[in-house]
Amino acid sequence: MTYVCPTIAEIRAAVASGESSPEQFVIQSFDAAQASQAELHAFQYLPDTAPVNRAEAALAGVAVAVKDIIDTADMPTEFNSPAYAGRRPGQDACVVARLRAAGATILGKSVTTEFAFRHPGPTVNPWNSAYTPGGSSSGSAAAVSAGIVPLALGTQTQGSVIRPAAYCGVVGFKPTYGTIARTGVLPLAWSLDHVGLFARTVADAAYVLRLVAGTDAGDPHASHVPGTVTVEKATGRRIGMLTKQAGGALEPAQQAALDALAERLSHDGAEIVMVDLPAEIFDTPRHALTLMGVEAAITHGELVDRSPELVSAPMRELVAQGRALPATDYAMTKVLQGRMAHRFDRWLRETMALDALLVAPASGEPPRGLDFTGDASFCAPWTFLGVPAVTVPAGFGPMGLPLGAQLVGAANGDVALLDLAEWVEQRTGWKTGVAAISAQ
Amino acid sequence: MTYVCPTIAEIRAAVASGESSPEQFVIQSFDAAQASQAELHAFQYLPDTAPVNRAEAALAGVAVAVKDIIDTADMPTEFNSPAYAGRRPGQDACVVARLRAAGATILGKSVTTEFAFRHPGPTVNPWNSAYTPGGSSSGSAAAVSAGIVPLALGTQTQGSVIRPAAYCGVVGFKPTYGTIARTGVLPLAWSLDHVGLFARTVADAAYVLRLVAGTDAGDPHASHVPGTVTVEKATGRRIGMLTKQAGGALEPAQQAALDALAERLSHDGAEIVMVDLPAEIFDTPRHALTLMGVEAAITHGELVDRSPELVSAPMRELVAQGRALPATDYAMTKVLQGRMAHRFDRWLRETMALDALLVAPASGEPPRGLDFTGDASFCAPWTFLGVPAVTVPAGFGPMGLPLGAQLVGAANGDVALLDLAEWVEQRTGWKTGVAAISAQ
Repeated sequence: MTYVCPTIAEIRAAVASGESSPEQFVIQSFDAAQASQAELHAFQYLPDTAPVNRAEAALAGVAVAVKDIIDTADMPTEFNSPAYAGRRPGQDACVVARLRAAGATILGKSVTTEFAFRHPGPTVNPWNSAYTPGGSSSGSAAAVSAGIVPLALGTQTQGSVIRPAAYCGVVGFKPTYGTIARTGVLPLAWSLDHVGLFARTVADAAYVLRLVAGTDAGDPHASHVPGTVTVEKATGRRIGMLTKQAGGALEPAQQAALDALAERLSHDGAEIVMVDLPAEIFDTPRHALTLMGVEAAITHGELVDRSPELVSAPMRELVAQGRALPATDYAMTKVLQGRMAHRFDRWLRETMALDALLVAPASGEPPRGLDFTGDASFCAPWTFLGVPAVTVPAGFGPMGLPLGAQLVGAANGDVALLDLAEWVEQRTGWKTGVAAISAQ
Repeated sequence: MTYVCPTIAEIRAAVASGESSPEQFVIQSFDAAQASQAELHAFQYLPDTAPVNRAEAALAGVAVAVKDIIDTADMPTEFNSPAYAGRRPGQDACVVARLRAAGATILGKSVTTEFAFRHPGPTVNPWNSAYTPGGSSSGSAAAVSAGIVPLALGTQTQGSVIRPAAYCGVVGFKPTYGTIARTGVLPLAWSLDHVGLFARTVADAAYVLRLVAGTDAGDPHASHVPGTVTVEKATGRRIGMLTKQAGGALEPAQQAALDALAERLSHDGAEIVMVDLPAEIFDTPRHALTLMGVEAAITHGELVDRSPELVSAPMRELVAQGRALPATDYAMTKVLQGRMAHRFDRWLRETMALDALLVAPASGEPPRGLDFTGDASFCAPWTFLGVPAVTVPAGFGPMGLPLGAQLVGAANGDVALLDLAEWVEQRTGWKTGVAAISAQ
């Protein structure tokens, strides 16, 4: 019989009523993680016994998979790099500490691509092991998809939360830039890095956001998005759909899934508007590459010089590209990022008066094989702009693999966006189902 | 008889009681500005007739000198550069619009060094025309010092508000980075640029801050200092003095002025503590030069290429330096700026538990002649860190020129710092007196 762990809401209800103990849930997650490991490879590290957090708090009984670029005091954090084998940071990342304080149990470290960039790990897609789960937060997406844990932490610098979430048929949420502090998280490019969440439901992600949001003095990288997350709920359902996706053409099934969802939303009272993105949005991949190259060169340049054989070719190339750029290119890109974020915000909220955009999280189903984790360009513009994005499962493609629907909101409008996404989620027609690979 | 315009508090009281009309004060300021111009050269531009703002608001009757790198819709803004002769921006800078909305009258444009960098303008020190008024906000400092206006706007990228204020014997205030939006202000280096205020009293500066503070969507350059200005008043009077000034050795009279002030403050209940700055603070000039070079290259590079003969040698050199830097240097400096700002904040508030530092605003009296506007290195660290700083007049040196005392506070603690500075100001023994040059 296949075990599928309950949602956070279900765990909380069962613990509150006394029907189950927090420990039971954590042990079930731990057993599921171990049982799935040989086939799914979602975890980079699992302890020998279930590490139950006995704090009586909001997330008691909630087991969490933590992407292996996020520091944990009691487990290794190795970045999927041989250069960091056996690395044990002395303390928890800020977001991990906040989860523990809220009662969650850190179950293990989930597989990441090398340094959260391209070079893939061994995790497979739970729906079909011949396909990638997406990346770079591969293990986190797979662990939630396979019903092992109700919550996982990932990071997104281009499309590393939203894309794997869509490929694995789970909810992925990337909040406004800076909302979840990155203290203790390995940077790929701090001007673009976001900590994000994987969950089974939008409501679970929204619940956890409240517990982990907030700046931290150890995360000194300033936001180019002023202000802080407002707690306002969605007031309207005016949703823009793109005449042309930011990432390019969609597979027919992905387009059909978006269209069917839009029709249902319209039927239920949403106002669906076809819009053209401001032209400059299509330039964001080039700008993002400038920021990634330069910032990766600072983080990984020394390692590349010292031990190039321990670094993948794509990362070596990224570092070389960044090192070749003049300072004025980088500085101008930082200015453009701020300006474009402001302009997009005005375009979305004022010019178009939209509550959200409904866009594709990827071109469609995941690529076959594990070598290529998929095209991030359907997510990268929203990451560059720092605006919140959430993907919900929205059907299946011809290969029987999941498709998603991504909602993108205004900066700092995270709560309103999640509120709207919860309404959308109820109308996707998605039957949770069970992935082919899950714990026995 | 020498006219010295009243303070903002005095103007407000006279207008509120009906004793004087706002128009009277503005016309007196205008007449004083015109009368002083031949000798003082504080203004780059004055209109032909007094431009009275008739809005019945908080600053009715308050005439303001606006540094000529800050845009005004009704007057030229030429940056003290022949390349921009006759430039008329279409609209007010954000801070100008806020002042006008508050009832202030923009009297004229005050002299700046070229592009707010080194190349000086013709303004002289009101106390002795053989000496520099300091820069780059030369005309703004001189116009307040000479009793022409009660308020002037300046900008500080290294020491361009605090230093001329000290040299001219007036109050200068540079708020926390980002507090006054820079929309419509020519950047020198947006990672360092601050809009600041010149006034006759700390209370006047504090009053105006409330009216002009606030972010603006047109100022997209993010703060590396998180959070917003708190409105808390000073709670303590624990004041640190430096065993070694950030800018180097002081003239004996400047040291004596600080010591005498400290003794008086101690006598009146302040706790004076000798402290050593964290060593890294002494590296800030090098980091600031990296930011200035790269950002000036972006703003002025095209002009330097097109018409080098219209640009001063120091600015051409700055641009060339910035263009030669690799992107990684600039990116690393931006990271260091954020980290150092956080570390300084913790050092000041937690490690040392200080309410403020009492430091020199300059080495002492202003340099003789107009070619060199003085050494900014006593101010530059606080500008780099983005923390608030205020200078109050604190005596005279052997040449009969003013000396100042600078208070530096924690980021976003502007209101508390000004509150403390007002208490200090009452204890400086400074007799306002009258500068040699003032309106007849």
